Amino acid sequence: MADELTEAGGRIRLYVTADLGADAAVPLPDGPSHYLLHVMRAKPGDGLRLFNGRDGEWAAEITAATKRGVTVTARARTAAQSEVSDLWLCFAPIKKTPADYLAQKATELGAARLQPIFTRRTIVSRVNQERLLANAVEAAEQSGRLSVPQIAEPVTLEKLLASWPRERRLYFCDESGDARPLAQAAQPAPAAILTGPEGGFDPAERALLRAQNFVTPVTLGPRILRADTAALAALAVWQSAMGDQG
Amino acid sequence: MADELTEAGGRIRLYVTADLGADAAVPLPDGPSHYLLHVMRAKPGDGLRLFNGRDGEWAAEITAATKRGVTVTARARTAAQSEVSDLWLCFAPIKKTPADYLAQKATELGAARLQPIFTRRTIVSRVNQERLLANAVEAAEQSGRLSVPQIAEPVTLEKLLASWPRERRLYFCDESGDARPLAQAAQPAPAAILTGPEGGFDPAERALLRAQNFVTPVTLGPRILRADTAALAALAVWQSAMGDQG
Repeated sequence: MADELTEAGGRIRLYVTADLGADAAVPLPDGPSHYLLHVMRAKPGDGLRLFNGRDGEWAAEITAATKRGVTVTARARTAAQSEVSDLWLCFAPIKKTPADYLAQKATELGAARLQPIFTRRTIVSRVNQERLLANAVEAAEQSGRLSVPQIAEPVTLEKLLASWPRERRLYFCDESGDARPLAQAAQPAPAAILTGPEGGFDPAERALLRAQNFVTPVTLGPRILRADTAALAALAVWQSAMGDQG
Repeated sequence: MADELTEAGGRIRLYVTADLGADAAVPLPDGPSHYLLHVMRAKPGDGLRLFNGRDGEWAAEITAATKRGVTVTARARTAAQSEVSDLWLCFAPIKKTPADYLAQKATELGAARLQPIFTRRTIVSRVNQERLLANAVEAAEQSGRLSVPQIAEPVTLEKLLASWPRERRLYFCDESGDARPLAQAAQPAPAAILTGPEGGFDPAERALLRAQNFVTPVTLGPRILRADTAALAALAVWQSAMGDQG
């Protein structure tokens, strides 16, 4: 039975918040229920995979599907819980579509936490955390991750730096050109990448960042990257340099 | 005068196909003319920068602006021509928005050539080369590149391999998991990255690729990356490993 579920459940992976264990029945919220019933045309007995960021990955089956919702029941564990690298992405929010894209890509590239920050040149005045989370959940489901990155409350750059955990190195992607390449500067986790808004950091912010002893300015190459490109390139390069354990 | 233009022309960079030299007058096509007149509200005497992929970057000024179009005249060279790394991106085309995004990002990350390929699981049946080029031009203008990547004619994977220039190493981003990390396998240019369609390469294609002595299978980490994420991560990691000269 578990093997059959493993086979059939290879396509659909769902993130749930409930605890997972053998024969744990999990009633799904409206969104995933609708997706299973009306998009995937799933029926009772169909297999899928579940993960919750704590209990590994489980082969499961649909055990109830009514108008009131879908219940799935975990049957057999298919993977032990593993952690992504302890790597945060601190980013100045950008216009809507790039932010969706950024949340997806950062999740695929293994960021443990997405931290929106407000800087002086940040144009966006509001961050839709639910929307970032929805994009991160979808990307986690599709990429085979066993966890969803934490979406942190937006803070100003000043507050971020004032309350920074000092053992975590902050790689500041600086366009000024006199910094070391990230791949050479990278150190093991805990770590964080910091990227600016469309217009970059202003001179006072750059000076403030460079004055912190937990900050390492880094360059991503000779071209001027868009804010979202810089974030993705930095995550990929750091993971690559540190041997991305998944 | 040239200094003033350099100052004023810091914001607008335009790719042109004409030769550039001191006092070379370049009539612009309709698209850039419209952009300068109606989006940027530019007037005769306004400064901008020009590049053509051959003659470096030039400070220029608008010397005519009429209903029939805009003429710009190069005044002083502000940068010598430099080459990006000889790195190609061979990719199975994906749905419209990701392809636009991919062309932009690959340009920012310094790809010299974008080569669309058709594979067995490629869903897209047509590639809009003009649209890819328009995205690449815009990204080159904004990223400070002095060249625009070449947009190659789409070919099938079989044809690509049959006519492959053997001195160019092809890094095949393989999801199977038994390949070496790209950062470890990377060799100096000439090089090319190969990424598959949404559904990946089929088993026969994977066998064909692995049978070529110019192909190196590589992994980008333990998670399953979307086609466009894989392409961007691979470009960033190769550039980082090879010291991206720009």
